[in-house]
Amino acid sequence: MSETTADPDCHDGHAPGHGYIQDKDKYLARLKRIEGQARGIHRMVDENQYCIDILTQISALTSALQNVAIGLLDDHLRHCVVDAAKSGGPAADAKMAEASAAIARLVKS
Amino acid sequence: MSETTADPDCHDGHAPGHGYIQDKDKYLARLKRIEGQARGIHRMVDENQYCIDILTQISALTSALQNVAIGLLDDHLRHCVVDAAKSGGPAADAKMAEASAAIARLVKS
Amino acid sequence: MSETTADPDCHDGHAPGHGYIQDKDKYLARLKRIEGQARGIHRMVDENQYCIDILTQISALTSALQNVAIGLLDDHLRHCVVDAAKSGGPAADAKMAEASAAIARLVKS
Amino acid sequence: MSETTADPDCHDGHAPGHGYIQDKDKYLARLKRIEGQARGIHRMVDENQYCIDILTQISALTSALQNVAIGLLDDHLRHCVVDAAKSGGPAADAKMAEASAAIARLVKS
Repeated sequence: MSETTADPDCHDGHAPGHGYIQDKDKYLARLKRIEGQARGIHRMVDENQYCIDILTQISALTSALQNVAIGLLDDHLRHCVVDAAKSGGPAADAKMAEASAAIARLVKS
Repeated sequence: MSETTADPDCHDGHAPGHGYIQDKDKYLARLKRIEGQARGIHRMVDENQYCIDILTQISALTSALQNVAIGLLDDHLRHCVVDAAKSGGPAADAKMAEASAAIARLVKS
Repeated sequence: MSETTADPDCHDGHAPGHGYIQDKDKYLARLKRIEGQARGIHRMVDENQYCIDILTQISALTSALQNVAIGLLDDHLRHCVVDAAKSGGPAADAKMAEASAAIARLVKS
Repeated sequence: MSETTADPDCHDGHAPGHGYIQDKDKYLARLKRIEGQARGIHRMVDENQYCIDILTQISALTSALQNVAIGLLDDHLRHCVVDAAKSGGPAADAKMAEASAAIARLVKS
Protein backbone atom coordinates (compact mmCIF):
# COMPACT_ATOMS: atom_id res chain seq x y z
CA MET A 1 0.00 0.00 0.00
CA SER A 2 2.74 2.40 -1.03
CA GLU A 3 1.59 6.00 -1.05
CA THR A 4 4.44 7.16 -3.18
CA THR A 5 3.25 6.73 -6.73
CA ALA A 6 -0.31 7.97 -6.54
CA ASP A 7 -3.25 9.48 -4.81
CA PRO A 8 -4.23 6.88 -2.23
CA ASP A 9 -7.91 7.46 -3.01
CA CYS A 10 -7.20 5.87 -6.31
CA HIS A 11 -6.31 2.46 -5.05
CA ASP A 12 -7.08 2.28 -1.38
CA GLY A 13 -9.23 -0.65 -0.30
CA HIS A 14 -11.28 1.73 1.86
CA ALA A 15 -12.58 3.58 -1.17
CA PRO A 16 -14.49 0.77 -2.88
CA GLY A 17 -15.82 2.93 -5.67
CA HIS A 18 -12.36 3.44 -7.14
CA GLY A 19 -10.51 1.57 -9.81
CA TYR A 20 -10.37 -2.20 -10.07
CA ILE A 21 -11.50 -2.68 -6.48
CA GLN A 22 -15.11 -3.34 -7.33
CA ASP A 23 -14.02 -6.23 -9.60
CA LYS A 24 -11.37 -7.38 -7.18
CA ASP A 25 -12.70 -10.92 -6.77
CA LYS A 26 -12.90 -11.36 -10.51
CA TYR A 27 -9.27 -10.22 -10.91
CA LEU A 28 -8.08 -12.41 -8.05
CA ALA A 29 -9.74 -15.44 -9.66
CA ARG A 30 -8.19 -14.68 -13.04
CA LEU A 31 -4.75 -14.20 -11.49
CA LYS A 32 -5.10 -17.45 -9.53
CA ARG A 33 -5.76 -19.17 -12.85
CA ILE A 34 -2.74 -17.41 -14.40
CA GLU A 35 -0.54 -18.60 -11.54
CA GLY A 36 -1.80 -22.13 -12.23
CA GLN A 37 -0.95 -21.73 -15.93
CA ALA A 38 2.60 -20.66 -15.01
CA ARG A 39 2.92 -23.68 -12.71
CA GLY A 40 1.63 -25.90 -15.52
CA ILE A 41 4.30 -24.64 -17.91
CA HIS A 42 6.98 -25.33 -15.32
CA ARG A 43 5.64 -28.88 -14.98
CA MET A 44 5.60 -29.37 -18.77
CA VAL A 45 9.31 -28.53 -18.96
CA ASP A 46 10.03 -30.71 -15.95
CA GLU A 47 8.26 -33.63 -17.67
CA ASN A 48 10.17 -33.01 -20.93
CA GLN A 49 6.98 -32.32 -22.84
CA TYR A 50 7.10 -31.27 -26.45
CA CYS A 51 8.45 -27.74 -27.09
CA ILE A 52 5.61 -26.74 -29.38
CA ASP A 53 3.00 -27.71 -26.80
CA ILE A 54 4.85 -25.60 -24.22
CA LEU A 55 4.95 -22.65 -26.62
CA THR A 56 1.19 -22.96 -27.12
CA GLN A 57 0.69 -22.69 -23.36
CA ILE A 58 3.02 -19.68 -23.17
CA SER A 59 0.99 -17.91 -25.88
CA ALA A 60 -2.21 -18.66 -23.95
CA LEU A 61 -0.70 -17.32 -20.72
CA THR A 62 0.55 -14.18 -22.47
CA SER A 63 -2.96 -13.53 -23.84
CA ALA A 64 -4.52 -14.07 -20.41
CA LEU A 65 -2.07 -11.56 -18.90
CA GLN A 66 -2.78 -9.02 -21.64
CA ASN A 67 -6.49 -9.32 -20.99
CA VAL A 68 -5.99 -8.66 -17.27
CA ALA A 69 -3.80 -5.67 -18.12
CA ILE A 70 -6.38 -4.28 -20.55
CA GLY A 71 -9.10 -4.66 -17.90
CA LEU A 72 -7.03 -2.97 -15.19
CA LEU A 73 -6.15 -0.14 -17.54
CA ASP A 74 -9.79 0.37 -18.47
CA ASP A 75 -10.74 0.53 -14.77
CA HIS A 76 -7.85 2.92 -14.16
CA LEU A 77 -8.94 5.26 -16.96
CA ARG A 78 -12.57 5.23 -15.81
CA HIS A 79 -11.74 6.02 -12.19
CA CYS A 80 -8.33 7.43 -11.33
CA VAL A 81 -7.78 9.23 -14.63
CA VAL A 82 -11.31 10.63 -14.80
CA ASP A 83 -11.05 11.88 -11.22
CA ALA A 84 -7.67 13.46 -11.93
CA ALA A 85 -9.03 15.07 -15.10
CA LYS A 86 -11.88 16.63 -13.14
CA SER A 87 -9.48 18.04 -10.53
CA GLY A 88 -7.12 19.33 -13.22
CA GLY A 89 -3.73 20.93 -12.58
CA PRO A 90 -0.27 19.37 -12.66
CA ALA A 91 -1.49 16.27 -10.78
CA ALA A 92 -3.85 15.53 -13.67
CA ASP A 93 -1.03 15.96 -16.19
CA ALA A 94 1.16 13.61 -14.18
CA LYS A 95 -1.67 11.05 -14.10
CA MET A 96 -2.02 11.20 -17.89
CA ALA A 97 1.72 10.85 -18.44
CA GLU A 98 1.78 7.88 -16.09
CA ALA A 99 -1.14 6.17 -17.87
CA SER A 100 0.44 6.78 -21.28
CA ALA A 101 3.75 5.31 -20.14
CA ALA A 102 1.94 2.20 -18.86
CA ILE A 103 0.10 1.87 -22.19
CA ALA A 104 3.39 2.22 -24.08
CA ARG A 105 4.98 -0.55 -21.99
CA LEU A 106 2.02 -2.85 -22.69
CA VAL A 107 1.96 -2.13 -26.43
CA LYS A 108 5.71 -2.76 -26.70
CA SER A 109 5.82 -5.85 -24.48
CA MET B 1 4.74 -37.32 -22.45
CA SER B 2 2.11 -37.41 -25.20
CA GLU B 3 3.35 -39.15 -28.30
CA THR B 4 0.67 -37.65 -30.46
CA THR B 5 2.03 -34.33 -31.59
CA ALA B 6 5.65 -35.16 -32.33
CA ASP B 7 8.50 -37.49 -32.72
CA PRO B 8 9.29 -38.54 -29.15
CA ASP B 9 13.02 -38.31 -29.91
CA CYS B 10 12.51 -34.62 -30.12
CA HIS B 11 11.53 -34.04 -26.53
CA ASP B 12 12.06 -37.23 -24.64
CA GLY B 13 14.12 -36.96 -21.48
CA HIS B 14 16.04 -40.04 -22.52
CA ALA B 15 17.54 -38.26 -25.51
CA PRO B 16 19.49 -35.52 -23.72
CA GLY B 17 21.00 -34.14 -26.90
CA HIS B 18 17.63 -32.89 -28.16
CA GLY B 19 15.87 -29.58 -27.80
CA TYR B 20 15.66 -27.60 -24.59
CA ILE B 21 16.60 -30.58 -22.44
CA GLN B 22 20.23 -29.62 -22.11
CA ASP B 23 19.19 -26.26 -20.66
CA LYS B 24 16.37 -27.77 -18.64
CA ASP B 25 17.58 -26.53 -15.25
CA LYS B 26 17.94 -23.00 -16.59
CA TYR B 27 14.37 -23.08 -17.95
CA LEU B 28 13.00 -24.56 -14.74
CA ALA B 29 14.64 -21.78 -12.72
CA ARG B 30 13.26 -19.09 -15.05
CA LEU B 31 9.77 -20.60 -14.92
CA LYS B 32 9.93 -20.84 -11.13
CA ARG B 33 10.68 -17.11 -11.11
CA ILE B 34 7.80 -16.48 -13.53
CA GLU B 35 5.44 -18.40 -11.24
CA GLY B 36 6.64 -16.17 -8.37
CA GLN B 37 5.98 -13.06 -10.48
CA ALA B 38 2.40 -14.28 -11.16
CA ARG B 39 1.89 -14.91 -7.45
CA GLY B 40 3.27 -11.42 -6.71
CA ILE B 41 0.74 -9.82 -9.07
CA HIS B 42 -2.08 -11.71 -7.36
CA ARG B 43 -0.85 -10.39 -4.01
CA MET B 44 -0.63 -6.80 -5.33
CA VAL B 45 -4.31 -6.92 -6.34
CA ASP B 46 -5.24 -8.55 -3.04
CA GLU B 47 -3.46 -5.71 -1.19
CA ASN B 48 -5.19 -3.06 -3.33
CA GLN B 49 -1.91 -1.79 -4.69
CA TYR B 50 -1.82 0.91 -7.30
CA CYS B 51 -3.07 -0.14 -10.79
CA ILE B 52 -0.10 1.33 -12.62
CA ASP B 53 2.37 -0.57 -10.43
CA ILE B 54 0.46 -3.77 -11.18
CA LEU B 55 0.54 -3.03 -14.91
CA THR B 56 4.32 -2.55 -14.70
CA GLN B 57 4.66 -6.02 -13.18
CA ILE B 58 2.39 -7.51 -15.84
CA SER B 59 4.59 -6.00 -18.58
CA ALA B 60 7.68 -7.45 -16.88
CA LEU B 61 6.07 -10.88 -16.63
CA THR B 62 4.98 -10.77 -20.28
CA SER B 63 8.56 -9.95 -21.32
CA ALA B 64 9.95 -12.78 -19.19
CA LEU B 65 7.51 -15.21 -20.81
CA GLN B 66 8.40 -13.99 -24.30
CA ASN B 67 12.08 -14.54 -23.57
CA VAL B 68 11.44 -18.11 -22.44
CA ALA B 69 9.36 -18.70 -25.59
CA ILE B 70 12.09 -17.27 -27.82
CA GLY B 71 14.67 -19.49 -26.12
CA LEU B 72 12.53 -22.63 -26.46
CA LEU B 73 11.84 -21.85 -30.09
CA ASP B 74 15.53 -21.37 -30.80
CA ASP B 75 16.31 -24.73 -29.19
CA HIS B 76 13.46 -26.31 -31.14
CA LEU B 77 14.75 -24.97 -34.46
CA ARG B 78 18.30 -26.07 -33.75
CA HIS B 79 17.34 -29.61 -32.81
CA CYS B 80 13.92 -30.93 -33.79
CA VAL B 81 13.58 -28.84 -36.94
CA VAL B 82 17.15 -29.43 -38.10
CA ASP B 83 16.74 -33.18 -37.56
CA ALA B 84 13.45 -33.19 -39.43
CA ALA B 85 15.00 -31.19 -42.27
CA LYS B 86 17.80 -33.72 -42.60
CA SER B 87 15.31 -36.61 -42.75
CA GLY B 88 13.14 -34.76 -45.26
CA GLY B 89 9.78 -35.97 -46.55
CA PRO B 90 6.29 -35.09 -45.36
CA ALA B 91 7.32 -35.33 -41.69
CA ALA B 92 9.79 -32.49 -42.27
CA ASP B 93 7.11 -30.40 -43.94
CA ALA B 94 4.75 -31.02 -41.01
CA LYS B 95 7.51 -29.98 -38.59
CA MET B 96 8.03 -26.71 -40.46
CA ALA B 97 4.31 -25.97 -40.58
CA GLU B 98 4.06 -26.65 -36.86
CA ALA B 99 7.02 -24.36 -36.05
CA SER B 100 5.61 -21.59 -38.24
CA ALA B 101 2.22 -21.83 -36.56
CA ALA B 102 3.88 -21.55 -33.14
CA ILE B 103 5.85 -18.50 -34.31
CA ALA B 104 2.66 -16.89 -35.64
CA ARG B 105 0.90 -17.42 -32.30
CA LEU B 106 3.82 -15.80 -30.47
CA VAL B 107 4.07 -12.84 -32.84
CA LYS B 108 0.33 -12.22 -32.59
CA SER B 109 0.04 -12.72 -28.82
CA MET C 1 -14.30 14.25 -41.55
CA SER C 2 -17.05 11.89 -40.41
CA GLU C 3 -19.07 13.29 -37.55
CA THR C 4 -20.41 9.91 -36.62
CA THR C 5 -17.84 8.51 -34.28
CA ALA C 6 -17.05 11.50 -32.09
CA ASP C 7 -17.54 14.99 -30.91
CA PRO C 8 -16.21 17.12 -33.79
CA ASP C 9 -14.56 19.46 -31.29
CA CYS C 10 -12.24 16.62 -30.54
CA HIS C 11 -10.66 16.38 -33.95
CA ASP C 12 -11.78 19.29 -36.02
CA GLY C 13 -9.04 21.34 -37.64
CA HIS C 14 -10.80 24.50 -36.55
CA ALA C 15 -10.16 23.75 -32.89
CA PRO C 16 -6.35 23.79 -32.87
CA GLY C 17 -6.10 23.25 -29.13
CA HIS C 18 -7.50 19.72 -29.38
CA GLY C 19 -5.77 16.39 -29.71
CA TYR C 20 -2.91 15.70 -32.07
CA ILE C 21 -3.56 18.80 -34.13
CA GLN C 22 -0.89 20.87 -32.45
CA ASP C 23 1.71 18.24 -33.37
CA LYS C 24 0.20 17.66 -36.77
CA ASP C 25 3.35 18.51 -38.75
CA LYS C 26 5.42 16.18 -36.62
CA TYR C 27 2.95 13.33 -37.22
CA LEU C 28 2.76 14.05 -40.94
CA ALA C 29 6.55 13.89 -41.19
CA ARG C 30 6.69 10.61 -39.28
CA LEU C 31 3.94 9.09 -41.41
CA LYS C 32 5.69 10.23 -44.59
CA ARG C 33 8.76 8.37 -43.38
CA ILE C 34 6.63 5.31 -42.57
CA GLU C 35 5.19 5.38 -46.08
CA GLY C 36 8.76 5.47 -47.41
CA GLN C 37 9.67 2.48 -45.23
CA ALA C 38 6.70 0.53 -46.65
CA ARG C 39 7.80 1.43 -50.19
CA GLY C 40 11.34 0.33 -49.33
CA ILE C 41 10.12 -3.10 -48.17
CA HIS C 42 8.18 -3.50 -51.43
CA ARG C 43 11.35 -2.69 -53.36
CA MET C 44 13.41 -5.16 -51.29
CA VAL C 45 11.02 -7.98 -52.26
CA ASP C 46 10.98 -6.82 -55.87
CA GLU C 47 14.80 -6.94 -55.92
CA ASN C 48 14.82 -10.43 -54.33
CA GLN C 49 16.71 -9.20 -51.30
CA TYR C 50 17.45 -11.51 -48.42
CA CYS C 51 14.40 -12.53 -46.33
CA ILE C 52 16.06 -11.78 -43.00
CA ASP C 53 16.95 -8.24 -44.11
CA ILE C 54 13.34 -7.71 -45.14
CA LEU C 55 12.12 -9.01 -41.77
CA THR C 56 14.42 -6.55 -40.02
CA GLN C 57 12.83 -3.69 -41.95
CA ILE C 58 9.34 -4.97 -41.14
CA SER C 59 10.19 -5.01 -37.41
CA ALA C 60 11.50 -1.44 -37.70
CA LEU C 61 8.34 -0.31 -39.49
CA THR C 62 6.12 -2.02 -36.91
CA SER C 63 7.97 -0.21 -34.11
CA ALA C 64 7.64 3.13 -35.90
CA LEU C 65 3.89 2.56 -36.27
CA GLN C 66 3.53 1.61 -32.61
CA ASN C 67 5.31 4.79 -31.59
CA VAL C 68 2.95 6.91 -33.69
CA ALA C 69 -0.02 5.06 -32.16
CA ILE C 70 1.28 5.59 -28.63
CA GLY C 71 1.76 9.29 -29.33
CA LEU C 72 -1.72 9.72 -30.83
CA LEU C 73 -3.27 7.84 -27.91
CA ASP C 74 -1.43 10.04 -25.42
CA ASP C 75 -2.70 13.17 -27.18
CA HIS C 76 -6.18 11.68 -27.29
CA LEU C 77 -6.19 10.96 -23.55
CA ARG C 78 -4.87 14.41 -22.70
CA HIS C 79 -7.45 16.25 -24.79
CA CYS C 80 -10.58 14.41 -25.90
CA VAL C 81 -10.75 12.07 -22.92
CA VAL C 82 -9.98 14.77 -20.35
CA ASP C 83 -12.62 17.05 -21.87
CA ALA C 84 -15.17 14.23 -21.86
CA ALA C 85 -14.30 13.37 -18.25
CA LYS C 86 -14.92 16.98 -17.23
CA SER C 87 -18.32 17.02 -18.97
CA GLY C 88 -19.27 13.65 -17.48
CA GLY C 89 -22.41 11.72 -18.32
CA PRO C 90 -22.92 8.88 -20.79
CA ALA C 91 -20.82 10.66 -23.44
CA ALA C 92 -17.83 10.46 -21.09
CA ASP C 93 -18.44 6.75 -20.49
CA ALA C 94 -18.65 6.15 -24.24
CA LYS C 95 -15.36 8.02 -24.71
CA MET C 96 -13.63 5.85 -22.13
CA ALA C 97 -15.00 2.63 -23.63
CA GLU C 98 -13.83 3.77 -27.05
CA ALA C 99 -10.32 4.61 -25.80
CA SER C 100 -10.07 1.29 -23.97
CA ALA C 101 -11.11 -0.62 -27.07
CA ALA C 102 -8.43 1.19 -29.10
CA ILE C 103 -5.82 0.36 -26.46
CA ALA C 104 -6.89 -3.31 -26.48
CA ARG C 105 -6.52 -3.45 -30.28
CA LEU C 106 -3.02 -1.97 -30.05
CA VAL C 107 -1.90 -4.27 -27.24
CA LYS C 108 -3.18 -7.32 -29.10
CA SER C 109 -1.87 -6.33 -32.55
CA MET D 1 21.17 -7.78 -53.93
CA SER D 2 23.70 -7.61 -51.15
CA GLU D 3 25.80 -10.74 -50.91
CA THR D 4 27.03 -9.91 -47.45
CA THR D 5 24.44 -11.35 -45.12
CA ALA D 6 23.66 -14.67 -46.73
CA ASP D 7 24.15 -17.33 -49.26
CA PRO D 8 22.93 -15.76 -52.51
CA ASP D 9 21.27 -19.05 -53.47
CA CYS D 10 18.87 -18.37 -50.69
CA HIS D 11 17.31 -15.27 -52.14
CA ASP D 12 18.55 -14.85 -55.66
CA GLY D 13 15.88 -14.33 -58.28
CA HIS D 14 17.68 -16.79 -60.52
CA ALA D 15 16.97 -19.67 -58.14
CA PRO D 16 13.19 -19.69 -58.28
CA GLY D 17 12.83 -22.69 -55.99
CA HIS D 18 14.16 -20.76 -53.01
CA GLY D 19 12.41 -18.80 -50.32
CA TYR D 20 9.65 -16.32 -50.94
CA ILE D 21 10.45 -15.97 -54.61
CA GLN D 22 7.79 -18.35 -55.80
CA ASP D 23 5.16 -16.22 -54.04
CA LYS D 24 6.80 -12.99 -55.05
CA ASP D 25 3.78 -11.55 -56.87
CA LYS D 26 1.55 -12.28 -53.90
CA TYR D 27 3.98 -10.49 -51.56
CA LEU D 28 4.37 -7.54 -53.92
CA ALA D 29 0.57 -7.14 -54.06
CA ARG D 30 0.27 -7.31 -50.27
CA LEU D 31 3.07 -4.78 -49.81
CA LYS D 32 1.49 -2.47 -52.38
CA ARG D 33 -1.68 -2.57 -50.31
CA ILE D 34 0.33 -1.91 -47.13
CA GLU D 35 1.94 1.12 -48.78
CA GLY D 36 -1.56 2.35 -49.62
CA GLN D 37 -2.65 1.84 -46.01
CA ALA D 38 0.32 3.92 -44.82
CA ARG D 39 -0.58 6.65 -47.30
CA GLY D 40 -4.19 6.51 -46.09
CA ILE D 41 -3.12 7.06 -42.48
CA HIS D 42 -1.05 10.05 -43.54
CA ARG D 43 -4.12 11.46 -45.30
CA MET D 44 -6.32 10.87 -42.25
CA VAL D 45 -3.98 12.96 -40.08
CA ASP D 46 -3.75 15.61 -42.79
CA GLU D 47 -7.57 15.82 -42.87
CA ASN D 48 -7.75 16.03 -39.06
CA GLN D 49 -9.73 12.83 -38.83
CA TYR D 50 -10.67 11.38 -35.48
CA CYS D 51 -7.74 9.92 -33.46
CA ILE D 52 -9.53 6.68 -32.64
CA ASP D 53 -10.28 6.03 -36.32
CA ILE D 54 -6.59 6.60 -37.11
CA LEU D 55 -5.56 4.20 -34.34
CA THR D 56 -7.87 1.56 -35.81
CA GLN D 57 -6.11 1.90 -39.17
CA ILE D 58 -2.70 1.68 -37.49
CA SER D 59 -3.73 -1.58 -35.77
CA ALA D 60 -4.91 -2.94 -39.12
CA LEU D 61 -1.64 -1.97 -40.81
CA THR D 62 0.41 -3.53 -38.00
CA SER D 63 -1.52 -6.79 -38.38
CA ALA D 64 -1.02 -6.78 -42.14
CA LEU D 65 2.74 -6.29 -41.65
CA GLN D 66 2.90 -9.09 -39.08
CA ASN D 67 1.17 -11.42 -41.50
CA VAL D 68 3.67 -10.62 -44.24
CA ALA D 69 6.52 -11.18 -41.77
CA ILE D 70 5.07 -14.52 -40.63
CA GLY D 71 4.72 -15.61 -44.27
CA LEU D 72 8.27 -14.59 -45.17
CA LEU D 73 9.63 -16.33 -42.10
CA ASP D 74 7.75 -19.52 -42.96
CA ASP D 75 9.18 -19.45 -46.49
CA HIS D 76 12.63 -18.77 -45.07
CA LEU D 77 12.43 -21.75 -42.69
CA ARG D 78 11.16 -24.06 -45.41
CA HIS D 79 13.89 -23.14 -47.87
CA CYS D 80 17.01 -21.38 -46.63
CA VAL D 81 16.98 -22.93 -43.17
CA VAL D 82 16.16 -26.44 -44.39
CA ASP D 83 18.92 -26.23 -46.99
CA ALA D 84 21.40 -25.00 -44.39
CA ALA D 85 20.34 -27.76 -42.00
CA LYS D 86 21.00 -30.37 -44.66
CA SER D 87 24.46 -28.95 -45.38
CA GLY D 88 25.27 -28.71 -41.67
CA GLY D 89 28.41 -27.19 -40.20
CA PRO D 90 28.97 -23.68 -38.85
CA ALA D 91 27.02 -22.10 -41.73
CA ALA D 92 23.93 -24.00 -40.59
CA ASP D 93 24.43 -22.83 -37.02
CA ALA D 94 24.80 -19.23 -38.23
CA LYS D 95 21.57 -19.59 -40.24
CA MET D 96 19.68 -20.81 -37.18
CA ALA D 97 21.04 -18.02 -34.99
CA GLU D 98 20.04 -15.49 -37.64
CA ALA D 99 16.50 -16.90 -37.95
CA SER D 100 16.08 -16.96 -34.16
CA ALA D 101 17.21 -13.35 -33.87
CA ALA D 102 14.68 -12.32 -36.54
CA ILE D 103 11.92 -14.21 -34.70
CA ALA D 104 12.89 -12.50 -31.42
CA ARG D 105 12.67 -9.07 -33.08
CA LEU D 106 9.22 -9.87 -34.45
CA VAL D 107 7.91 -11.25 -31.15
CA LYS D 108 9.20 -8.22 -29.27
CA SER D 109 8.05 -5.59 -31.79
